[in-house]
This record gives sequence, structure tokens and C-alpha cells, in this order.
Amino acid sequence: MTKQNIAFSTNGWVHCIQLSPPCLGDNLADTDRLITALKLQVDAKTIHIDLSLMAQIPGILRQSNFRVVCTLFGCSHEYQLIEIQPAHNYLPVYGLAIDLGTTRVVLRFLDLIKQKTLVETSFENPQTSIAPDVLARIHYTDQDNGLQTLQNLIIGGINQEIQKTCECNSISFDRIQCMSIAGNTCMTHLFLGLPPHAIIREPYIPVINKHLVVSASELSINIHPKGRVLVFPNIGSYFGGDLIAGILSLDMIHQEETAIMVDVGTNAEVVLGNKDWMLACAGAAGPALEGGVSKIGMTAGPGAIERIHMTPDSEQFAWQTIGNKKPIGICGSGIIDLAAVLFRSGMLDIRGKFVPEKCKDRLVNSDGLLSFIVIPNNQSATGEDLTISQADIDSLIRSKAAMYTILNTITRSVGMALSDLSVFYVAGTFGAYIDPSAAITIGMIPDLPLECYRSVGNTSLEGASRILLSIADTEAIPKIYKHITYMELNVNQEFMNRFSAAKFLPHTDRRLFPNVI
Amino acid sequence: MTKQNIAFSTNGWVHCIQLSPPCLGDNLADTDRLITALKLQVDAKTIHIDLSLMAQIPGILRQSNFRVVCTLFGCSHEYQLIEIQPAHNYLPVYGLAIDLGTTRVVLRFLDLIKQKTLVETSFENPQTSIAPDVLARIHYTDQDNGLQTLQNLIIGGINQEIQKTCECNSISFDRIQCMSIAGNTCMTHLFLGLPPHAIIREPYIPVINKHLVVSASELSINIHPKGRVLVFPNIGSYFGGDLIAGILSLDMIHQEETAIMVDVGTNAEVVLGNKDWMLACAGAAGPALEGGVSKIGMTAGPGAIERIHMTPDSEQFAWQTIGNKKPIGICGSGIIDLAAVLFRSGMLDIRGKFVPEKCKDRLVNSDGLLSFIVIPNNQSATGEDLTISQADIDSLIRSKAAMYTILNTITRSVGMALSDLSVFYVAGTFGAYIDPSAAITIGMIPDLPLECYRSVGNTSLEGASRILLSIADTEAIPKIYKHITYMELNVNQEFMNRFSAAKFLPHTDRRLFPNVI
Repeated sequence: MTKQNIAFSTNGWVHCIQLSPPCLGDNLADTDRLITALKLQVDAKTIHIDLSLMAQIPGILRQSNFRVVCTLFGCSHEYQLIEIQPAHNYLPVYGLAIDLGTTRVVLRFLDLIKQKTLVETSFENPQTSIAPDVLARIHYTDQDNGLQTLQNLIIGGINQEIQKTCECNSISFDRIQCMSIAGNTCMTHLFLGLPPHAIIREPYIPVINKHLVVSASELSINIHPKGRVLVFPNIGSYFGGDLIAGILSLDMIHQEETAIMVDVGTNAEVVLGNKDWMLACAGAAGPALEGGVSKIGMTAGPGAIERIHMTPDSEQFAWQTIGNKKPIGICGSGIIDLAAVLFRSGMLDIRGKFVPEKCKDRLVNSDGLLSFIVIPNNQSATGEDLTISQADIDSLIRSKAAMYTILNTITRSVGMALSDLSVFYVAGTFGAYIDPSAAITIGMIPDLPLECYRSVGNTSLEGASRILLSIADTEAIPKIYKHITYMELNVNQEFMNRFSAAKFLPHTDRRLFPNVI
Repeated sequence: MTKQNIAFSTNGWVHCIQLSPPCLGDNLADTDRLITALKLQVDAKTIHIDLSLMAQIPGILRQSNFRVVCTLFGCSHEYQLIEIQPAHNYLPVYGLAIDLGTTRVVLRFLDLIKQKTLVETSFENPQTSIAPDVLARIHYTDQDNGLQTLQNLIIGGINQEIQKTCECNSISFDRIQCMSIAGNTCMTHLFLGLPPHAIIREPYIPVINKHLVVSASELSINIHPKGRVLVFPNIGSYFGGDLIAGILSLDMIHQEETAIMVDVGTNAEVVLGNKDWMLACAGAAGPALEGGVSKIGMTAGPGAIERIHMTPDSEQFAWQTIGNKKPIGICGSGIIDLAAVLFRSGMLDIRGKFVPEKCKDRLVNSDGLLSFIVIPNNQSATGEDLTISQADIDSLIRSKAAMYTILNTITRSVGMALSDLSVFYVAGTFGAYIDPSAAITIGMIPDLPLECYRSVGNTSLEGASRILLSIADTEAIPKIYKHITYMELNVNQEFMNRFSAAKFLPHTDRRLFPNVI
């Protein structure tokens, strides 16, 4: 049979085991025999087996000549036996990795025996219908059944997506036996049904930070009834499991070289370190970087300008929208591009103020606000001018200054300068679209050689996937958790001074940005 | 409040914990904070908490000023948090220890805070209605739903007893949070719903030997929904958790002195050892010792002769029955007494044959069998003679010879003689009623000074109770399990020679029984 030729990964969660059959001289009990053999293949302290599964062991061992395929899952060397199948006739085993975003949930289904991706899907986090952001959702849990409602929404959404994917791929839900999920601290709490009330109130206390391995049935997740869900740990209220998954996927705790990873969003989450030490912090950057404040700002979607530049001769904008539609707004990466071109062309001065002589008739008074026409009405999808106001630019500058100050503060705290960094990971879906040269131009990120910047995409999903394929990667989770020192960002006078200095384009200290002309 | 003055045992399963409230400088998450504090009090590797309980932690911590009463339970330093209560207003916590006998189930309810027994009850194992003995019950599981039926019977019986006891003592079932159960290998399998088929078939393989900690709800036991059940491990098919509980209760693995413990029954289970080594074996002794074969033999119950002796002058029997009723039969301890007095009076010869000249008209031919009238019809409850046949005596002699040979074999295997023993524990309810001097007279047990014999009663229940009161005793379970070497009794020629030599009263080698005149 071809199946028998498949080499099972010795580091994976599915193992093919040949036991020696018992005899009078070797009368170990069936379960103890199986556990002993499994422990020779995987470095487990304990292997738990539910009673109903244990009751099947004698039969399966004898009908398979003591050669079986076992699915395990867990963490900290404490594993659960999820299924045991006869080796001569076994079914595939799947895993499900989830990046649990505030707005979008991304799922990757993996074949745990063949060790490859089956399919990737995503859906909008259904909690968005209740409240768009983290803060509003936490407030919603103060209502009667608010927490239950939010939990039901996300679990229901995941179950629906599982069902759809199983149908499309003709697999049975009980073939999915291991699941991993990485999200920010609040999303993780809502998923688990844990009250997030204290996360946003001084002294900002989550219910739990440590990783959890929970039974899928306790969460009403429709996978194999004995399936397990590994939930990534949080480092604190503002540094969640998605970041831990990111650190895991970049293998940062095994690197000699000091690297920095930044997840750019309303909060800037930053981790700096190497195999010997690791420092993390998080700070509010404001929604401007995600395109969430200006009148024409929007989240990335069809018709959003994601890229914009200026033809050098004509001073005309050239842009690119998502889906190549007529523009209806501008998303975060577009706003950073826009600020960069306006500054390079002299239309914004170093304080970030519009320069009327340069902007000419593009500068208008719209609803009593000084605004700049980005897209004239005859080229927009809405039939109206798409404008950005001075207030929008001011907001962007505060956000980019906050980001730069956070980066500056964490590197200084270990006696490094930003220019010492040779690897700068930009994580997150949003980060993937930022043009580093534009972000450098406005002084949001340091003026490093462009090759230092590595857009690493959805590292949260990547990390969540890796643990489904590798016991060693799973065991790295508690190591990363212990390895990280979380630094409270003290917003003191020194921080404020640095912040003020960073509120210029690109910075008051131009020597920090030698390549920005 | 008086409650606050109760000293919680530092070695118990219920702990009162004062946490330091979180602040900006100490922002450990609630659950992590609680676990950290618990680990300072108990030596735990992991403390598991179900999600629904975890969700209550933030509220309870804040309403109790971070002073809480926690129930833990588990083994191998892997504990479950079962309940968390505010320390200013907590309810009692109970535990339930069960000796799961083939015929009788004994329950002891304990107050885990006050560390004392609340009440003890017992009931007949309802599986008896299906089949009286282990073998017949195992065969019954080969029928459709046979295993399920037997499991339902015992779980139902336990639940009924819990309900009755809770009602009588005005306690709520959910105050019972920890449960321990010790039984023989088969009873343990039937309780857990594990197929016992292979236990009685060569090479005699149980489904599991190792101890288990199972959730009460998985077993449908009606205690606290998050309550846990610790199931004592078996050493093998014929050496069960009841014996491990016995070894625990006698603290045998911490003693310098070599002791032997014997559980007398249809199977003779023997353990020999001290703090450095421990050897166990089990062998069939036949049902004769339990009064289970002869026509008038019966299990201990009202009207059973439990004690019998002979007035030296008149050669008349004097007896004592359970409940002081008129005799209806004779139980195991009575049969041993009877054989001893018959031998002492010369009515049985050293081969165990009735001596007609001595028995005189008490020897009759009953149903074609040579029989001895123990109780004449005018003194029995049945109105008929209570007689014991030559075949009954032969059967008893085979049983006692098997017992002695097993004791002889295990001590010889470590180079000891039976006469080297200074502590001889007789365990089990049946053992409690045996008169050692009668048992010595017939050569069932060695001719040691009577003070060496210690009837230790229901050590299975005692061991099960001790672990509910002491973490250290619980942690002794895996130690005992590892400490014991199980010896297969090879029924070889040498064994058979010893067995033949032991089939005399008291033995062919009279020097072994100097005190039997």
C-alpha cells in the first residue's frame, strides 16, 4: 500500500508506532505499553488519554497487529492522545491554524501527515457587527450576556468556516484534530469567554497570559470531539498571542543577530532581541496609520488607494487602487505614500503644514477645514473630490512620531541606536503594504538601508501553522514566553521630548535621516 | 469569624491563599497570579483550570480582596483547580473515599478542611445481581452492552449512595469535590468502562495499570461538576488498586523492617518488602477460605458461624454467629476455626481425613458423601443438620496449602525464611475475622508468635481516605507503583512439591510449626 510508504515526520503530531505484542514475559497493560512506546518517539512528560478513547485501545491494538497511527497534541511536554487508528487502514489527519484578527479571521487548514497546507480561507470577524474595535467590544461585555454574545459570534464564525471548508474539500470535520489560534489579548479573551473588563483599566490585568490547551468541545468548536485547541499566550494586555506567533515564525529566539519586529496598527507592538535576550513593548500610535481617521481614510478594500506617487515633471499624482477600481478613499499605506510625496514635493513643510505656494489650487477650504484635493471629482468613484485635511496630516504626524519614539525608546533602553539594527521585520497584513522608503521619508521608521526592511506578512498565521507541523516549534512557545521581558512604556518627560522631536518631517534631527533629501 | 481561625492543613487539598493585588508594577494576569501563589504552597508542576472556572477568577479575586479558598486535586504533581471561593465566606469541602469490592462497596465521606471523617456507609455491589464473581462479570462483558450495563450498575449504586448520604447529612452534592477509589483490577476496569476481556486470558493484560485522575462528569458521578476522581493503579491483572491502597495505608514503603501483607480471599495477594524493595505476587487459593464452597459455607452475614471452638471436657462445640442468630451456615473464619478444632481434637488426621473412631456418630453419610455434623438439626436455624463433607475439608486443605506455598515462595525468592518475618499484616474484611492461632494450627499461615500478626482491616478504604487528606500520601501512589516488582508465580515442579508438602495438617515438616501441638 502506498500509505505505508509515507514517512511520518518524527517531529510532527501524528506518529506511526509499532508495539511489541504482550506475552507472559512482557505483560505491560495496553495503555501503559502504548504510552511507553509513544514516549520513545516524542519527548513527553505525560500523555493523557480520555476514558472513552482508552476503552478502544485493546481492540485497535489487536486488530492492527499492534501497529497504529496516533495523533497527539499539547504543549509543555504534556500531550493528549486524540486518536488512535490501525496503521493498515488510517485516515488523514488535519490541523487548523487561525490568525484571530480584530477585523479579519484567517484560517489555514493543514495536512498533518503530509505536512503541507490544504487550503487557506478567511472571513470578517463577526464581532465587527457589534463593535468595530477592541475598546468598544470590551465595553460591550459589561452588558448582560455581552461576553457570551461576542464569544458565540466568533465561535459560530469559525464553525461556519470549518463547515464550508470541509464541504468544499470533501473532508469530515472529525479529521481536523489539532487547532492553534493566535490573536491579540482581547480577541483571545473573547474567544475563550474570559471577561476582558480589567484589560483596559489600570493596572491593565488580563485573566490569563500563559498559553492554554483547551478541548475543542469545551469551546464548542466543531472539529474532532477529542480535538485540542492551543491558544497562544499573551505577554500583557497590549502584547498578544499574535506577536508571540510572529516571534516564533521568525525564529527570533534562536538568532545571534539582534532584530526588531514591529506590528504596525492602532497600537504599535515592538519586540527587539536575539537568542540571549528579548524586550517587548507596545504603545498607542493612533488609528491614522491604518487609514482610520481622515475623511477619505478607509481600511484596505476595493477602490482604496494603496500606492500613490508623483510624476516628477508634471507634479501629477499617479495611483494604484485595490482591485483597480476608481478611487473611493485611501488606506493606510496610501496615506503614508501621500504624506511622503507631499513632503518631497515641498507641498508639506517640515512641520507637516501645507505650503499654499506649492499646493496652489489643490488647497481648498472644505467644510471649513484647510484641505488638499488628492483626487479631483472627475476621477473619483464618488463623483466628489477626495480631500485630505490639515487635521488629517497632523494626526498622521502624531501617529508616525509615536511609532518612531517607541522604536527609539526600546532600542535606547538596551543601549543601542536605531542605526545599529540590521534586520527590521514589518509584520501584519497592514505592514505588508507599507512602502519602507515612504515611511522613512516621513520619519516613521528609521533611515536604514532598504534591504534591512523585511515585510513578513501574516506572521501570526505562520506561527500558528508551524506549531501544527512541529512539536519542537510548539515547545518553543513557553520558551518565548519566558524569554521576553515586557517593558512598560513610561510616558515621562524624556519620552515626550523625543516625541516632540519626532513630530517633524522626517525629524528635527536631520542627521538621523541622511538619505531623506 | 470563627471560620477564619481554622488552620488549613498545608498538606491538604484545600488551601487558603492571600494574593498580593495587582498594580502597575506587578501586572501578572489573574490566573497566572493565582497559580504562582498556589505553587508556593503546593509542589505542583502544573495546575489546570477549566475555562468556565477561569472566567470566574477575576470576579472572585476582586470581591474577596484577593483572599481565596481553593480546592485542588490530582497526582504526579499535576493538579486541577476544582473550586475557588472567597475566603470571607466559604463553604465546606468534602471528599469521598471508596473501597470498591466485588461484593461490597464501602464509602467514607471526609471533611477536607477539618480533616476528619464525616460518615461511612456501604452497599452491596449491584453488579452482584448480574454475576457474583469477577470471572462471571468479565464473561458478561462479552455480551452486547454487557460492559455498559455493569458500569451503569456500579456508577448508579455509587450515585444513589451519594444522594442518600447528602440528604441524611444535609449537604449538597457539589460540596463533594475530590474522590478516590481503590478496587481490584477487574472492578476498576468495570467502574471505568474499560473492557476487561484480556485480563483473564493469557497473557493477562489489563487496559491500564497506571493510576488515573478522571473528571467526575466523564464518569457521570454526581459530585461537584468539576470534581476529580483518583483511581488507584493496578500492578497487574491479579494485583489491584485495593492492595496499593493497603500498602499506602500501612506506610510499607517507608519502613526499615521487612513486612508482609496478605489479602486472603479467593485469590491470595501478597506483598513483601520494606523501604528499599518490594515484591508482590498473587495466586489462586480457591474459594474455600471465604466459605464459598462447602454446602453450609456462606459469606459473612447474619446467622453465619464466625467463631467455633470445642469445650475441652465435653468435646462439644461452642460457637458464635454473626448477629447472635441461630446458625444457618458457616463463613470463612468459622471454617478455619472448625478445621483447627477438628484437627486438635484428633477428629481430622494429618492428611485432613475424618477419623471415624474419634468422630463417632457425628460422622454420617449425607447425600452419598461422608459428612460431619457441625450443628445438629435441633440447634440450627434451618431445622436440618449443618454438615461439612470430606470433600469440603479437602477443598479447604488445598486452599490453605496454596496460601502457605505462595507465602513460602515469595519469601524464599528473596532468600528469607517465613520465620524471619516479624510483621505479618492480614488485610481485608475477611482477614479481620480470621483467628491467627486457628490459621496456624491448620498450617495456612506460618507459625510466628501471635503478636506478629496484625489484622489491619479495610486497608483499601484507609488508603483511599488518606490521599484525600494528604498531598504527600497521594504522591506516594506513583512511588509505590514504581517500587513494586511483580513476581509471576511459576507453577513449576518445585512449587508443586512445596504445595504437596503443605497439604498436610499443619505440614509434612512439623519443625515448621513447633507451636502446633
